[in-house]
Amino acid sequence: MKHYLNINNLDNLQNTVQEAITLKKNELQFEHLGKGKTICLLFFNNSLRTRLSTQKAAQNLGLNVIVMNFGSEGWQLEYEDGVVMNQDKAEHVKEAAEVIAQYCDFVAIRAFASLTDKEKDKAEIVLNNFKKYAGIPVINMESATGHPLQALADAITIEEYKVAHKPKVVLSWAPHPRALPHAVANSFVEMMQLQDADFVITHPEGYELDTEITKNAKIEYNQKKAFENADFVYVKNWSSFKDYGKVVCTDENWMINEEKMNVTNNGKFMHCLPVRRNVVVADEVIDSENSIVIQQANNRTYSAQIVLKKILENN
Amino acid sequence: MKHYLNINNLDNLQNTVQEAITLKKNELQFEHLGKGKTICLLFFNNSLRTRLSTQKAAQNLGLNVIVMNFGSEGWQLEYEDGVVMNQDKAEHVKEAAEVIAQYCDFVAIRAFASLTDKEKDKAEIVLNNFKKYAGIPVINMESATGHPLQALADAITIEEYKVAHKPKVVLSWAPHPRALPHAVANSFVEMMQLQDADFVITHPEGYELDTEITKNAKIEYNQKKAFENADFVYVKNWSSFKDYGKVVCTDENWMINEEKMNVTNNGKFMHCLPVRRNVVVADEVIDSENSIVIQQANNRTYSAQIVLKKILENN
Amino acid sequence: MKHYLNINNLDNLQNTVQEAITLKKNELQFEHLGKGKTICLLFFNNSLRTRLSTQKAAQNLGLNVIVMNFGSEGWQLEYEDGVVMNQDKAEHVKEAAEVIAQYCDFVAIRAFASLTDKEKDKAEIVLNNFKKYAGIPVINMESATGHPLQALADAITIEEYKVAHKPKVVLSWAPHPRALPHAVANSFVEMMQLQDADFVITHPEGYELDTEITKNAKIEYNQKKAFENADFVYVKNWSSFKDYGKVVCTDENWMINEEKMNVTNNGKFMHCLPVRRNVVVADEVIDSENSIVIQQANNRTYSAQIVLKKILENN
Repeated sequence: MKHYLNINNLDNLQNTVQEAITLKKNELQFEHLGKGKTICLLFFNNSLRTRLSTQKAAQNLGLNVIVMNFGSEGWQLEYEDGVVMNQDKAEHVKEAAEVIAQYCDFVAIRAFASLTDKEKDKAEIVLNNFKKYAGIPVINMESATGHPLQALADAITIEEYKVAHKPKVVLSWAPHPRALPHAVANSFVEMMQLQDADFVITHPEGYELDTEITKNAKIEYNQKKAFENADFVYVKNWSSFKDYGKVVCTDENWMINEEKMNVTNNGKFMHCLPVRRNVVVADEVIDSENSIVIQQANNRTYSAQIVLKKILENN
Repeated sequence: MKHYLNINNLDNLQNTVQEAITLKKNELQFEHLGKGKTICLLFFNNSLRTRLSTQKAAQNLGLNVIVMNFGSEGWQLEYEDGVVMNQDKAEHVKEAAEVIAQYCDFVAIRAFASLTDKEKDKAEIVLNNFKKYAGIPVINMESATGHPLQALADAITIEEYKVAHKPKVVLSWAPHPRALPHAVANSFVEMMQLQDADFVITHPEGYELDTEITKNAKIEYNQKKAFENADFVYVKNWSSFKDYGKVVCTDENWMINEEKMNVTNNGKFMHCLPVRRNVVVADEVIDSENSIVIQQANNRTYSAQIVLKKILENN
Repeated sequence: MKHYLNINNLDNLQNTVQEAITLKKNELQFEHLGKGKTICLLFFNNSLRTRLSTQKAAQNLGLNVIVMNFGSEGWQLEYEDGVVMNQDKAEHVKEAAEVIAQYCDFVAIRAFASLTDKEKDKAEIVLNNFKKYAGIPVINMESATGHPLQALADAITIEEYKVAHKPKVVLSWAPHPRALPHAVANSFVEMMQLQDADFVITHPEGYELDTEITKNAKIEYNQKKAFENADFVYVKNWSSFKDYGKVVCTDENWMINEEKMNVTNNGKFMHCLPVRRNVVVADEVIDSENSIVIQQANNRTYSAQIVLKKILENN
């Protein structure tokens, strides 16, 4: 594996999950693997879990870490070819990417969706330009359309907590006051498509995700029916994809509460965090024993660490 | 010692001061103690001395350090229970604190007073919620009501420079154009109450500190009288506690100058810095040989390092 | 060498260039030289190359690195003596510099020109005050009037790519929408004055650099004539020095294009970056085989590393 831009970059999801679970038992086992090498974490957007867990994972592998907040510590980049750069963009990504590659062996990037230009977002302008011009391995720390480090952490968590061989997993939309990207939901769907599971997506009509990603995944518009006998309920808000980036529903009835969880098969509650309590999920659910959001966040370290280990071993 | 939230968390101030002075002579003696462990420094407010000295102290102990400016690199946290989080707070401290504890072994926090809500400030909302939910040791890098790393550095400095067995130490208020918190003054008072010293506080009427902290400490409203025969003059501005967070006096006559220092017992001038010259203190005093503000700042490293060492040894 | 404020602080430019080229072949050879020592990188202005390459260079030498963005993470400093500090400056540089020196062994500083006050800029207020008060080695990461780490990287690059013993090197002004400092051009001129080269500066009338720096360097106002038979074309915009900090010409005819490069002696194109494409330089030139801007950026690591090595060995 050279880059990690998408969960499908993994040769084999199941093996990777097992390797991560093994690594977790002895996280400093490969503390010399990254010696003398440097990873640059580039943030075009804010972060808590990704910022801390990726640093931690890199340090566990002995890598030097350089963190840069591109917005506040750098300047705006131009991504278009052939432009006369006489406006607000001070540097072209061609130079920025290639220059960063002079100082670092790997670059991890967080660059959210605009939610205003669907085609640009789908083109993954930032990630793909860095991949094209940097020449070094690029790791996706949440891009316009995906969050594969999160999805791998989710897979590790499901593997650790599943009881049935073939669990029922529900991805449920929930309300949120602001327009949020599709990245987490997309990568979760892509990850689930690699699993042996009964997978159902539930959301209000109009909140269909990109069908190029969901393909023939089962969609159930009745949330309560979707939850029946679920082993895992994975909750996330996203804005409309059809009416791109718009909040077309804020129906509080879609919030996850105890009554809904009661129809599951003692289902585990999952969320990538940050989460707005009593908007997305009721306190009674996130504070219950069946909530595994912290364990899920913990697995962000091992998700990043196994990805970095694979990239280190193959570069 | 699990947490360091208050100077009173130390088992024994005098012994700790001696241990710090010993450590200072060989600051890399315990460079392997923190190996493989990570401290997260969370800044909700700006910092120079604390930012640098705590990083230095942690590195001296071999700890990995992750610095995060929560305001600019993260988002606003909710601290209230049961709130419907549909406004500007993106994450509850319950999740944020517990998540940080997944990646880090210790968390140090700077979160200043609001100076608008006395009860909330006294409740130390940020610090206590992190203590409650993180489960890992929490270190106070200046909170709403205290700055115990500063107070310990002050104690080390007084020990190094005292001549008399029982020195006279004066805490003097001085004018300042902006409303400042009580944290440094509070912790200094609490620290002095653990010392064998003749301790006097001087300030204009209306600037009484919280009596739950000062208890029966001696207050002398005549600054010059307070300074007589003082071995140490510790200067700090704070806003009114009674008329909470207000600047009720800017009387320039309270500025520290040479004339006032002349009535002391060749007294040393101390200040936690940053200090506004010729507002809080005249150039002639801070530039004099009796000014030990730099030595005091230097001791911030050893204050932080002895605290981290104690926490490392007991966790 | 104690400080590195100016290219002339180097004992011998040619020897330093050779040492850097040797170091580049085995960049981890001195990875223990900085063990237990700490460098603080203070940014009063944004940065990409300098931020990353200086961190990389320091890590290659085993130094601990503390990065601080003074504007967003600290507060404004006062640089004048005797001021009553009752306005917006929270700390005097006297204290700030001396305090930083308590925690760090070296301090590297980026502080751009104001471009509004020529005398203040020429006085290098920030750099010289830190040098005066910190007492530790100070490294210039681009100041009001110079960028000697860039100039040393430029010298390394010219040495690596020169064919003739005495190359013709042209420093050409190029248009830019914003007013830019003179620092890079100044240091390049100072560096070239230490070289055995045919050196020519070309710019529109009114864009003369400070004659205290250019001295008797050859100026050719006809850009195309200047380019004839050039081995290296070093391009940079700067604002007017005479009409200080003003943009007095934006003539697009000064942009570097293929037609102009064709009159050179198969000349290499150099720029310190970031560069505005199709304003400063046409895509056809920066994307050509003769463009060595990335190799030049790469040498920023070895420029910083050889400087830090020399300072480490002499302190």
